[in-house]
Amino acid sequence: MKLTILGSSSALPTSGRYPSAHVLNAHERLFLIDCGEGTQMQLRKTRTRFAKINHIFISHLHGDHVFGLYGLLSTFSLMGRTNTIHLYAPENYDKMLKSHLSDFDINLSFEIDFIPLSGKDPVKILDDKYLTVTSFPLQHRIPSYGFLFREKRSERNIKKECIEKYQIPQVRLPAIKKGEDFVTPDGVIIKNEDLTLPPHEPLSYAYCSDTKYFKRLASFVKGVSLLYHEATFDKSKEDLAEITGHSTTLDAAKTAIDAKAGALIIGHFSARYKEIEPLIEEAQTIFPETYAAIDGHSYEVGNLSHL
Amino acid sequence: MKLTILGSSSALPTSGRYPSAHVLNAHERLFLIDCGEGTQMQLRKTRTRFAKINHIFISHLHGDHVFGLYGLLSTFSLMGRTNTIHLYAPENYDKMLKSHLSDFDINLSFEIDFIPLSGKDPVKILDDKYLTVTSFPLQHRIPSYGFLFREKRSERNIKKECIEKYQIPQVRLPAIKKGEDFVTPDGVIIKNEDLTLPPHEPLSYAYCSDTKYFKRLASFVKGVSLLYHEATFDKSKEDLAEITGHSTTLDAAKTAIDAKAGALIIGHFSARYKEIEPLIEEAQTIFPETYAAIDGHSYEVGNLSHL
Repeated sequence: MKLTILGSSSALPTSGRYPSAHVLNAHERLFLIDCGEGTQMQLRKTRTRFAKINHIFISHLHGDHVFGLYGLLSTFSLMGRTNTIHLYAPENYDKMLKSHLSDFDINLSFEIDFIPLSGKDPVKILDDKYLTVTSFPLQHRIPSYGFLFREKRSERNIKKECIEKYQIPQVRLPAIKKGEDFVTPDGVIIKNEDLTLPPHEPLSYAYCSDTKYFKRLASFVKGVSLLYHEATFDKSKEDLAEITGHSTTLDAAKTAIDAKAGALIIGHFSARYKEIEPLIEEAQTIFPETYAAIDGHSYEVGNLSHL
Repeated sequence: MKLTILGSSSALPTSGRYPSAHVLNAHERLFLIDCGEGTQMQLRKTRTRFAKINHIFISHLHGDHVFGLYGLLSTFSLMGRTNTIHLYAPENYDKMLKSHLSDFDINLSFEIDFIPLSGKDPVKILDDKYLTVTSFPLQHRIPSYGFLFREKRSERNIKKECIEKYQIPQVRLPAIKKGEDFVTPDGVIIKNEDLTLPPHEPLSYAYCSDTKYFKRLASFVKGVSLLYHEATFDKSKEDLAEITGHSTTLDAAKTAIDAKAGALIIGHFSARYKEIEPLIEEAQTIFPETYAAIDGHSYEVGNLSHL
């Protein structure tokens, strides 16, 4: 799993920070999360393959998380796309989107499969061969949702030499990959742990933006390998964070601690901060594994220490 | 007059070319012409003062000329703007804009004065102390308008030494600036050309995008100092230009010749062209004073030769 940050600004972009958009690469499929203005240009700059994007997740209907979508969908269409786009967004957005595309006389060359987000509890919104995606409610000025991408546990890997050594028939392999022992024709039990190697620990990534701090959030992302959490403000601006429905550096770090996250990336920085290093240092005082969201940078989920 | 190109791509932006947007600086007032996706970020990169933009001109309702407007207006609002924005756009756009802003719960902190564009003839849409702006119809797949910005002729400059020499009273100065002679108390006529220096020749800038070639267009921009004309395609793609309602390099150059333009900038380049130098050279074969629109570059109207 690899995460690429396309935009790390809050509502006011700066010359170096674009509005929110992330791309998660999981098993060479790309998941676009939020789509602020300029997303398609940032996708070009990061040499991302447009055709590999089939799922787009919109956290909430504030412009800095959505205004790149019209241009991106138009571009998909101009490029002759025919594959369906699965669009996960707050309920009712499909009507707004259709009306806006029709105002601009845009007839898409592909279908949009709209999956509405709603409710007060986590909902599994995608379940395929490799991973599940769960949406969960955040607390912002308007309905807002986070997303948890969780790899499925792979099957165990059979040691090649054992297949020959114990003359294991093809038909038995699937069960052994799932953890069963093998019984030889002579009735000898070969323990699964002697035949196989464990798969890698499933990785997970959670996106939490925009939201203010609330205790239950950590339970939605418990044990996540990499948590992205907005940190619009430094700790001195907690009153402003409360009023605007945003988080401070310490709010993000607290959620990372409570969730026992492997690492934390903070972003969605207010334009008031020319330098973001002090924000990172502030979060690191209570959660050392904190990293900065930087436009155009990629991060390996489960292994951020090289940054 | 100084022109800054914020975007030179056609519908599909590339990593180096953003969708259409120009800023014309005339007497330190800024006129934004078209507002493709990413305009506000390009304004930041070119260190343009947001507060100096009071007039926005939208040529037509295709996304690559408009999709930056929502973000820009939101940003104006977040910055606490109170000055009215004068928005010149094809008729009915005000309804679409209002509906879209309301979908996104955007309450602007300032008024929008909407000036609808329509009709088949040039219309003077702005007339102030320094310049006039005229809109004129283009020929595209949907209603599309060009804009001609023309400086007013300044008054003549009175030579300071003459005021003292002939003891000219303050009250006579306005008439002399307008070209009148001065009659001394003794009845001696001092000719205006001996008292004053001529003002600089008024400059003008015209924006023509998107449009296919049509003969009457040159008459709308006759004698313009600097003509910006779209050239989506090279000359070999004239069939495609016809079908899509766009121009080739030679179409743009022909209009520049017929209009006796001082210089021509071409842009709105199709994403198929990695290098645009061959397009410029093609136009230069019939109109040597052709220059390339390059994102982030500024051009002095009336003096492009330094490029």
